[in-house]
Amino acid sequence: MAAERIGAEKALEGLPGWARAPGERDAIVRKFVFEDFNAAFGFMTRVALKADKMDHHPEWSNVYNRVEVLLTTHDADGVTGLDVAMAEFMNGAAVGLGGK
Amino acid sequence: MAAERIGAEKALEGLPGWARAPGERDAIVRKFVFEDFNAAFGFMTRVALKADKMDHHPEWSNVYNRVEVLLTTHDADGVTGLDVAMAEFMNGAAVGLGGK
Repeated sequence: MAAERIGAEKALEGLPGWARAPGERDAIVRKFVFEDFNAAFGFMTRVALKADKMDHHPEWSNVYNRVEVLLTTHDADGVTGLDVAMAEFMNGAAVGLGGK
Repeated sequence: MAAERIGAEKALEGLPGWARAPGERDAIVRKFVFEDFNAAFGFMTRVALKADKMDHHPEWSNVYNRVEVLLTTHDADGVTGLDVAMAEFMNGAAVGLGGK
């Protein structure tokens, strides 16, 4: 998918669990909760491998079993198909690791 | 080391690169910068394995090649020897991966 800006609103149509980022940035966010740190970091590891392969990296934070993610495409100054693809990958990876 | 509160000031005496956390919490913080995401997440992976073994987990965020860490011990409501041990491990791991 090309990194053409589609905007958060359109991106969110098919992305359960995700929301528009608070503030001015055209970005999407989701909080994932896992059973423990092992599962949370397992999720982050799967996502990290994917992100580096895509050369498209999340902004994220982790506290024990929780992972908060923000996705946007800097080059496009907003949400693109790259963010949708990454969000879909994250949703699938989270399910696979018992995350919500 | 027992999880006895020693406080940020004393903890920082032997911890280059670390600072007192802004705000009210008795915690210590450091920002690490690496060459790229691969090195940053490699650092996080080494730290995650150590953290889960210690059962002492950081609060941290990552944006591409940057990792920001906050350490405190919830059970002690402040900085303990566990945080000092973790900070020392992080400093060593960062050096090993070319981080600053």
